[in-house]
Amino acid sequence: LDEFDLIARYFSPLAGRSGLGLLDDAACITPPTGKDMVVSKDMLVAGIHFFPDDKPASLAFKALSVNISDLAAKGARPHSYLLGLSLPEDMDQIWIEQFADGLAEAQKYYNIELIGGDTTSTLGPITISVTAIGYVEQGGMVRRNGACIDDRIYVTGTLGDAALALLGIRGECKLYEDLLECYHRPVVNSVFGQGLCGRASASADVSDGLIADIHHICKASGVGAVVNASALPVSANAARIIKRDSKLAPLIWSGGDDYKIVFTASAENGCHLKRFAKQTGVKVTEIGKIVAGAGVDLVDFSGQQVQIGTEGFMHFSKGRRQS
Amino acid sequence: LDEFDLIARYFSPLAGRSGLGLLDDAACITPPTGKDMVVSKDMLVAGIHFFPDDKPASLAFKALSVNISDLAAKGARPHSYLLGLSLPEDMDQIWIEQFADGLAEAQKYYNIELIGGDTTSTLGPITISVTAIGYVEQGGMVRRNGACIDDRIYVTGTLGDAALALLGIRGECKLYEDLLECYHRPVVNSVFGQGLCGRASASADVSDGLIADIHHICKASGVGAVVNASALPVSANAARIIKRDSKLAPLIWSGGDDYKIVFTASAENGCHLKRFAKQTGVKVTEIGKIVAGAGVDLVDFSGQQVQIGTEGFMHFSKGRRQS
Repeated sequence: LDEFDLIARYFSPLAGRSGLGLLDDAACITPPTGKDMVVSKDMLVAGIHFFPDDKPASLAFKALSVNISDLAAKGARPHSYLLGLSLPEDMDQIWIEQFADGLAEAQKYYNIELIGGDTTSTLGPITISVTAIGYVEQGGMVRRNGACIDDRIYVTGTLGDAALALLGIRGECKLYEDLLECYHRPVVNSVFGQGLCGRASASADVSDGLIADIHHICKASGVGAVVNASALPVSANAARIIKRDSKLAPLIWSGGDDYKIVFTASAENGCHLKRFAKQTGVKVTEIGKIVAGAGVDLVDFSGQQVQIGTEGFMHFSKGRRQS
Repeated sequence: LDEFDLIARYFSPLAGRSGLGLLDDAACITPPTGKDMVVSKDMLVAGIHFFPDDKPASLAFKALSVNISDLAAKGARPHSYLLGLSLPEDMDQIWIEQFADGLAEAQKYYNIELIGGDTTSTLGPITISVTAIGYVEQGGMVRRNGACIDDRIYVTGTLGDAALALLGIRGECKLYEDLLECYHRPVVNSVFGQGLCGRASASADVSDGLIADIHHICKASGVGAVVNASALPVSANAARIIKRDSKLAPLIWSGGDDYKIVFTASAENGCHLKRFAKQTGVKVTEIGKIVAGAGVDLVDFSGQQVQIGTEGFMHFSKGRRQS
């Protein structure tokens, strides 16, 4: 199969109207009036961001979730994506077929369509690059730089599940099926994300580890934060692992790959957003407060500072390498 | 240097307004009223699309040209780009610095700005993914599917220079400096490209080899084409190489990496476009005609069919591998 056959067989069926059947040099989007376009791009590399033998359908779903997560944190409604895919020449066709199946499933779930991209060979690991495009009302994108003193800090879902699954895969703690699912196939609620517009003062997606991502918000906003370690939302199985080995607790706030949303809002807007979260089936937890100053303090129930431990996910550190 | 330092030091200085200093999860673009957005995405992999030891500044320029070429063929005015970059962990910082210099130069040349992307490590070859964004008047994008019977076929610049340079690098023909420059640092005239809107009936960028790209236009338009081999524009040094070894002639129409524009237009619109080409410093040559039927015939001055020879650039074939 050459590049054109590959596109015709597996990717053209996924193409939406703006993608012109993937038969042209570029996609063409007519932006809705009064909207801003929000664009995010990620690279996923086998051996760094995923295991070479990860199931292709889950991997495809994850590749889209990772980008939809960025859009959701900005309050954007997902519209479409472009896919860059570099594959070893001896790539199994079944892999490609299952990868395309995963894309189709994610497209349906997130109501997005493929509009373009590029397929090439590589002498190295599978490399996936997704560019995701979404919309917000003009001027409505929720940025990282709007956090104000006395705003509350909130996070969606539970934290550390993917990081603990990764540790479990390495045999360093018990491996639970539901945590593994969080790692292999994170799911983003982009409908809740759209509710952040006009309510949240700042927002970021939690992908580098909670504290690192709150740090980004604080730095951009010129404020500091106090986060209550005991308030952090943890799944039942993550709690079991940490109860058994408390040294793993820092993974809750420093592990990567959560794909949750951390946002700040006034107490009043926070109440609105918690109600909206309930309507959209999302768990939202208040975990701290924005304060004057700089940096993020993690404190326990008595107000004592907690050692943050390992730094957030750094792509260039060896700590996260997966093969 | 971790990912954040790398971005702060080398890439944030390249960021435009829509890129928010590369300090947010996504870029935010306010589309101009009445325009469509044209989006193109390419992957470039070391050892497949470029030599690992290619000069990083030229490589960066080329990575942008390759995408601007797609936009130009669609009549779009380039606006901005996102950059995905996967680098080996032992990557030399000087390489990154020079690569950023090359981006800066191309940004200035094409009047575009960096608005986002992702920087990761890889256990494999350097992999570059650019997503380029441009604008056309609403409904004005020049597609591949509008070629009509009796339209003339035109191409910009000269053909085969990059393919012959690649052959020269391999020691299979004489290596000329100006051809090498076409290969390492193709330059696109996007101002001429914008003139195609409303004048060209169909257009594609020549990256897979001229005949292959005309074939794409024919297939999309439901027509055939006759191309005059003797009319194909060839540079002085390319002509010298072919005079010495006529077996290399097929590289003119089947070589890849030209980054020229092949378009179709009525004879009248073709005249207009040739005048506009002169104004914008672009050479445009009439090379054939659209006919009823299907497929592309390459004929010599006496109307005899010419053997097309090697197929156009196929990413999944071994023919083009560069290391």
